[in-house]
Amino acid sequence: MEKKLEELKTRLLEIGDLNSAGAVLAWDQMTYMPPGGAPARGRQMASLAKLAQEKLIDPALGRLLDDLQPYAEGMPYDDDDASLIRVTRRDFERATKVPPEFLARFNAHSSEAYMVWAAARPANDFAKVLPYLEKTLDLSRELANYFPGYEHIADPLIDFADYGMKAASVRTLFADLRARQVPLVQAITSQEEADDSCIRKHFPEQEQLKFCEEVVRQIGYDFERGRIDKTHHPFTIAFAVGDVRITTRVQEEFLGECLFSNIHEAGHALYEQGCDPKYDGTPLQGGTSAGVHESQSRLWENVVGRSRGFWEFFFPKLQQVFPEQLKGVSLEAFHRAANKVERSLIRTDADEVTYNLHVMLRFEFELAMLEGSLAVRDLPAAWRERFKADLGIEPPDDKDGCMQDIHWYAGNIGGVFQGYTLGNVMGAQFFDAALQAHPGIPDEIRQGKFDTLHNWLKENIYRHGRKFTAPELVQNVTGGEVSIEPYIKYLRAKYGELYQL
Amino acid sequence: MEKKLEELKTRLLEIGDLNSAGAVLAWDQMTYMPPGGAPARGRQMASLAKLAQEKLIDPALGRLLDDLQPYAEGMPYDDDDASLIRVTRRDFERATKVPPEFLARFNAHSSEAYMVWAAARPANDFAKVLPYLEKTLDLSRELANYFPGYEHIADPLIDFADYGMKAASVRTLFADLRARQVPLVQAITSQEEADDSCIRKHFPEQEQLKFCEEVVRQIGYDFERGRIDKTHHPFTIAFAVGDVRITTRVQEEFLGECLFSNIHEAGHALYEQGCDPKYDGTPLQGGTSAGVHESQSRLWENVVGRSRGFWEFFFPKLQQVFPEQLKGVSLEAFHRAANKVERSLIRTDADEVTYNLHVMLRFEFELAMLEGSLAVRDLPAAWRERFKADLGIEPPDDKDGCMQDIHWYAGNIGGVFQGYTLGNVMGAQFFDAALQAHPGIPDEIRQGKFDTLHNWLKENIYRHGRKFTAPELVQNVTGGEVSIEPYIKYLRAKYGELYQL
Repeated sequence: MEKKLEELKTRLLEIGDLNSAGAVLAWDQMTYMPPGGAPARGRQMASLAKLAQEKLIDPALGRLLDDLQPYAEGMPYDDDDASLIRVTRRDFERATKVPPEFLARFNAHSSEAYMVWAAARPANDFAKVLPYLEKTLDLSRELANYFPGYEHIADPLIDFADYGMKAASVRTLFADLRARQVPLVQAITSQEEADDSCIRKHFPEQEQLKFCEEVVRQIGYDFERGRIDKTHHPFTIAFAVGDVRITTRVQEEFLGECLFSNIHEAGHALYEQGCDPKYDGTPLQGGTSAGVHESQSRLWENVVGRSRGFWEFFFPKLQQVFPEQLKGVSLEAFHRAANKVERSLIRTDADEVTYNLHVMLRFEFELAMLEGSLAVRDLPAAWRERFKADLGIEPPDDKDGCMQDIHWYAGNIGGVFQGYTLGNVMGAQFFDAALQAHPGIPDEIRQGKFDTLHNWLKENIYRHGRKFTAPELVQNVTGGEVSIEPYIKYLRAKYGELYQL
Repeated sequence: MEKKLEELKTRLLEIGDLNSAGAVLAWDQMTYMPPGGAPARGRQMASLAKLAQEKLIDPALGRLLDDLQPYAEGMPYDDDDASLIRVTRRDFERATKVPPEFLARFNAHSSEAYMVWAAARPANDFAKVLPYLEKTLDLSRELANYFPGYEHIADPLIDFADYGMKAASVRTLFADLRARQVPLVQAITSQEEADDSCIRKHFPEQEQLKFCEEVVRQIGYDFERGRIDKTHHPFTIAFAVGDVRITTRVQEEFLGECLFSNIHEAGHALYEQGCDPKYDGTPLQGGTSAGVHESQSRLWENVVGRSRGFWEFFFPKLQQVFPEQLKGVSLEAFHRAANKVERSLIRTDADEVTYNLHVMLRFEFELAMLEGSLAVRDLPAAWRERFKADLGIEPPDDKDGCMQDIHWYAGNIGGVFQGYTLGNVMGAQFFDAALQAHPGIPDEIRQGKFDTLHNWLKENIYRHGRKFTAPELVQNVTGGEVSIEPYIKYLRAKYGELYQL
């Protein structure tokens, strides 16, 4: 059994190395690759992915897992080897149940659909993408049906990103959340708009980058095991527990972009850097789900990074970096600007309060389309109607309506959006649990100290990597299920004070 | 046959992609990787190399090559497919003749030897490395003996880097070259030392980098298909014909370092960028030998980049960048400084005239050690004696004597040094041939025009990639064999004028 376990680990490390190599190539493509490298790079990345996939679906790996199953079952659930076998089996089954022929067909369609969308969106031409989106829906159903036995057809697709979450329970959770967030948004947006002019001045790039570096270092991002580079869209990527990089972008006329996206990505990165190094290169390395990953980026960006206490410490430093721009600006004015709530069209630009409404309508439409209760051709009208009901404004067109996100036009319909809101919800739960364990955390944040919070998150979440599913993590940490109460409580407290509700 | 050829190409592209991915990881390791990435990176690169090797020695690849042999033999020698089959067979045999068990043993020894050397060199402790070097010699002989039928035991080792060159002919060539270079060095170094103080001032890094970028762009390095980054040691690396990167370093107190190493690396890069794109990712992509590669770096660095005509164009521009530092410096003074000849201990710092003497003594010692006519323990004394005879100075210690280069301490003995001098020799031959075809080239260089030379090199050398061996290329281009005459003629003309010999 020892020998089989060794063989399993050797095989998995090889797959991990191929995937990590692919990640390095992807990072390079986004950061430094000259334009002439593009055609070969696409081919090289595809080759690495194909080899990793071949090694993952190798029947010999399946036999090893079968042979090791009794061994794993004889060990405690959280034993490292048992967890490795359990998580690998999940990955193996996910990879082997989908025929390569289907994958090829799906990928070919996705590439085509993406090209059509990229041209049709600026032209606001939904009719152009309609047949592609209809085919995407068919293919998404076909994909789900390779995993029979589901309660809801979206469940297998949700499993890809947020393993263990179910359409039915997420739907209930979101309905509840919507019922309580829509009135909050209405209450806030019926007031006078917050003034964010103090962060909409000219802030030179180099100073912004330098300050952001200082901030993420202070919250615990380890530059010995990471670095920051500039890209068109910010992202976090891990090549190893010892090499977790973030990227950023700068708007010189808006301080919020670089600053908060850096803290957001640093949150993702703290999660990856905090994984137990003994999982390095194995299926246990990394974040356990899209939702838990987002819980960390949003926790650090919003709950910590946009809190008043955080800026009690950092605002004087920020004023030293931008003395002209921030002369006479009060901490309160800055805090209010950093938390401005407004009804807007674009999800990725949305503030903390309205953001979930953007996400939840997409999730509902994914379910409805998969169920057949919403025809793809009726999506634009449904979008406008629901958007008005939730956010109080009507999108003037489809390009900034149902065509705004790349997701459905370059992948499947189903399972791709719920993680954003689950992240907000779980982030508040985790923070709440950390506060119960360490009530001094807010005071420490006011002094620029983040160790207690960081260590608690490492101990309870980060170090486990993919060992526990998201529902298991929530259970272990809070003793209960995913719940919106801490999140609602957090929002009401913070925005109640900001907007005197 | 068509189908088999297709299968061969598919397999080769996959191997090429793994190797290119490994190169990207190596580049990243040298440029941007944070320290914490090191352990995983070593493992990832080893995994990629192992997979590429496994795919290269796959018996199915050998059967394909066997099946395709009659097809290749029915085609002209320079046919693309025939050449692909021929060059692949060479790589395949090289890879399959060496048992994996030996490779593992050799690599383990090399790692250990390198560690010992890295510690022993600063301590000037040859006794420490002696047993390792003796074992390296044994292993190098064992390696050579996997390729029986050689004339000289060094021949198989020379084939690894400079395929088609033979110890006997290189030895004759070098003996001839030495006989004519030693007196030249003596004649020059018996004169008053050239004054290079004009390039030993303070030249700020950013300005140096900007100027160097301008120079390499002007000679033809394509930034759409490449980029320059900083590393500890400069190098050139290709991930594809469309992505050939160079690296550089700067000494702020010495202008020569960044400037000429940039032109040197750009020479390597022009070769790689000039390869026919249809060979991209196949065994035909890249430079055909260490010597031909070096011929291009040295041709551009020395024959072009240190020529008077080159600086007629660039020196006024350089003066604009460094007006204070170069005020009152004449073109002649600068040209002389850039071509200062001196007796020095370290090969990598040596000037154009003395450089080959450093290389040739290493080559002779490699042969002598392999033959058994020089015991490893006698190397330090032999080094001092020969160094004094050739360069007129005696190394005061071993650390800057026979312990100065990493090569023998991290690889095999034999076949690793000849390329540097063959490069100088062939570079002069190629330049001579280009001049015969286009006598206007020197005038164009004086006007900062490099197209005629660059295009001639592309047409006659670069585009062929690995299709022709070095001796074949020389034959095709010059109608004869490798010859030192153009090189000697070049040295005499240039240094005769500089030093009024």
